[in-house]
Amino acid sequence: MNISQRIKEVPYSAIRKLTPFADKAKADGKKVYHLNIGAPDTKTPDEFFDAIKNTNLKTLDYAPSKGLKSLMEKTCEYYKARGADFDPNKDIIITTGASEALVFALIAVSELGQKILTSNPFYSNYYTIFRQCGLNPVTFDTKVEDGYRLPDYETIKNAVTEDTAAILISNPSNPTGTVYTEEELRRIVRVAKEKDLFIIADEVYSEFIFDGKTFMSFASIEGIEDRLIILDSISKRFGACGARIGSLICKNQELMTEVIKLATGRLAVSTIDQIGATALYNVDESYFKEVNEEYEKRRNLIYEELKKIEGVKVYKPEGAFYIMPDLPIKDADDFAMWLLTEFDVDGETIMIAPADGFYHDSNEGKSKVRLAYVINQKDLKRAIEILGIALKEYRKLTNQ
Amino acid sequence: MNISQRIKEVPYSAIRKLTPFADKAKADGKKVYHLNIGAPDTKTPDEFFDAIKNTNLKTLDYAPSKGLKSLMEKTCEYYKARGADFDPNKDIIITTGASEALVFALIAVSELGQKILTSNPFYSNYYTIFRQCGLNPVTFDTKVEDGYRLPDYETIKNAVTEDTAAILISNPSNPTGTVYTEEELRRIVRVAKEKDLFIIADEVYSEFIFDGKTFMSFASIEGIEDRLIILDSISKRFGACGARIGSLICKNQELMTEVIKLATGRLAVSTIDQIGATALYNVDESYFKEVNEEYEKRRNLIYEELKKIEGVKVYKPEGAFYIMPDLPIKDADDFAMWLLTEFDVDGETIMIAPADGFYHDSNEGKSKVRLAYVINQKDLKRAIEILGIALKEYRKLTNQ
Repeated sequence: MNISQRIKEVPYSAIRKLTPFADKAKADGKKVYHLNIGAPDTKTPDEFFDAIKNTNLKTLDYAPSKGLKSLMEKTCEYYKARGADFDPNKDIIITTGASEALVFALIAVSELGQKILTSNPFYSNYYTIFRQCGLNPVTFDTKVEDGYRLPDYETIKNAVTEDTAAILISNPSNPTGTVYTEEELRRIVRVAKEKDLFIIADEVYSEFIFDGKTFMSFASIEGIEDRLIILDSISKRFGACGARIGSLICKNQELMTEVIKLATGRLAVSTIDQIGATALYNVDESYFKEVNEEYEKRRNLIYEELKKIEGVKVYKPEGAFYIMPDLPIKDADDFAMWLLTEFDVDGETIMIAPADGFYHDSNEGKSKVRLAYVINQKDLKRAIEILGIALKEYRKLTNQ
Repeated sequence: MNISQRIKEVPYSAIRKLTPFADKAKADGKKVYHLNIGAPDTKTPDEFFDAIKNTNLKTLDYAPSKGLKSLMEKTCEYYKARGADFDPNKDIIITTGASEALVFALIAVSELGQKILTSNPFYSNYYTIFRQCGLNPVTFDTKVEDGYRLPDYETIKNAVTEDTAAILISNPSNPTGTVYTEEELRRIVRVAKEKDLFIIADEVYSEFIFDGKTFMSFASIEGIEDRLIILDSISKRFGACGARIGSLICKNQELMTEVIKLATGRLAVSTIDQIGATALYNVDESYFKEVNEEYEKRRNLIYEELKKIEGVKVYKPEGAFYIMPDLPIKDADDFAMWLLTEFDVDGETIMIAPADGFYHDSNEGKSKVRLAYVINQKDLKRAIEILGIALKEYRKLTNQ
């Protein structure tokens, strides 16, 4: 009777592992600004709450395993308005968040023990899900110096091993906020075709694109319909993380026929959340514009404020709501813990996610942190001010 | 670029695979009585809907990965009222249905490629989840002749292989409705101790116990605290299948510390459903009694009606809302399909789940079906009447 080795090898969440210390700091009366987790503070559109308040359901029955027809249709309409043509009857399966869509995609395209190619750094929860599916990552490095852009074709191609089943790309990137250009997407596509890999595209931050740019989805590239799986979610799109509604979108019907078996295996996704999610697609397009503008202001603010801090290497992310600067310290884990347990400015401190949890077999993350700018501008400015003061004090204390 | 062998090996859901044919029958104007799926028709208590209608949430944020504190407390209070003492702060993690609790439990107790011991027949979705976790079942047979009671100690023990990690028991049993006695539970415990296995107890039907009997949980057996994992769900308990709220309950703290890593990996369970689920625990105890009485009447009805049909081998299940009779036919798959595509009585037919999907490496299921008695008594009586007429006609047609 042993706890398994495979679960022991799963690391603690980089984003949440310091939560007990933040709770302690709060219990001790400190105010903690949360820069660690990508949970938007913006209001969820009323459409969600109105819809669930107006249901006349008497028996809360299972939804169909594939999802509510209305939600599949609305999701495909949303994609259609953005130039991507998916059939709600066969190209989409509603999932419990994009997390479950990733589980389904990975099981569909890989055998136990195979590898998934992704960037380094990558979203830390990918690793947990890889391990859960009996997989391991292989990675190509991206660097803070050039804003974590993709490396050249050869570098990506050379990272592919014999037993690599798919490329998983987060665009806009979590954790770096980098938005890939058409040329970069085509580089990935070239590798995928050359090495005959599936492309799993995590595009859940697609509404968060700044500087007047337009998001380019893998769905707009022709000739990859059979190898493209899109992971979708309403969490960031509508500020509705707690609804746990995602989807897996793919035109490869052989694959969809197999994935539906996993969907029936877990019966269904929340009925009420699907009803609320369906209604969210009735929001006016102006909603996305307003939210986007707010996050662009926050991006500008965090970038400018970080630039002012001595020794911080920073770049200007073009999307999502994350930034991963390099700090003038040796161990961000230690620094993040110190912030919660030993430091405050007038009773206030910050919680940050050390970057090593976003790196695979690498010490590169040691001096970096992922900051999520999901708090209002006033708090955000104060939080980065605190970061600056903290860095100075911590470096003095530790002779760095 | 291949669809994986591991997903191809997952069978189509025994419960839902005939759905397209049922849909076609309905589109053609037939009335279809559903005996295939265990989705109670009973009203979900108003507490659920009232609670979600009264939320003042503005931002639908992630719940804590472990679950809402209020729901963990309420669930533990429910268990306490039934004699089981669990600490809401450390013995429980809220999951997306009992399905996710099973995934977490399996990953925590087994390595890739290992085996899980269970009864034959067993709940068909277990197999999907085993495959998803890189596992295979080993089984001991139970027989319709004695109402699918557990075999003797030696038989169960001899089914355990070198690489068996746990025993998974559904009690009351899905798909048979059998409720195990204290002596039977102790037989399982004896094997688990002798072979040093975890016990994963799926007790989601625990409120459905007939004939004035009391449910006996594995939680009431002393000395197995470290090896017992309970899979819990509100789906059947409150007729709230669409809420997808379950939990994993276990006193082994080393295990719980590991499982929380998987919980953080998928971020959270639906916030709204957890709010609704918390409120459900405010229902009066009389609710359970009323529902139980209704299902007992249905159990009596289906048992008596099945007994009247020539050639049907039947037994009296003591719990859940399933019965798995043996029919006087050679191929229940063919019969189930025929019912939907070629047969009707005055425009009415029935949908049933062929039992072979509930059997592992066995032809035993070929002539059996699982019937869920989750429709009102009038419809249920009519449905079994139709089954009787259908059997007669089908046997004549096929010379059986």
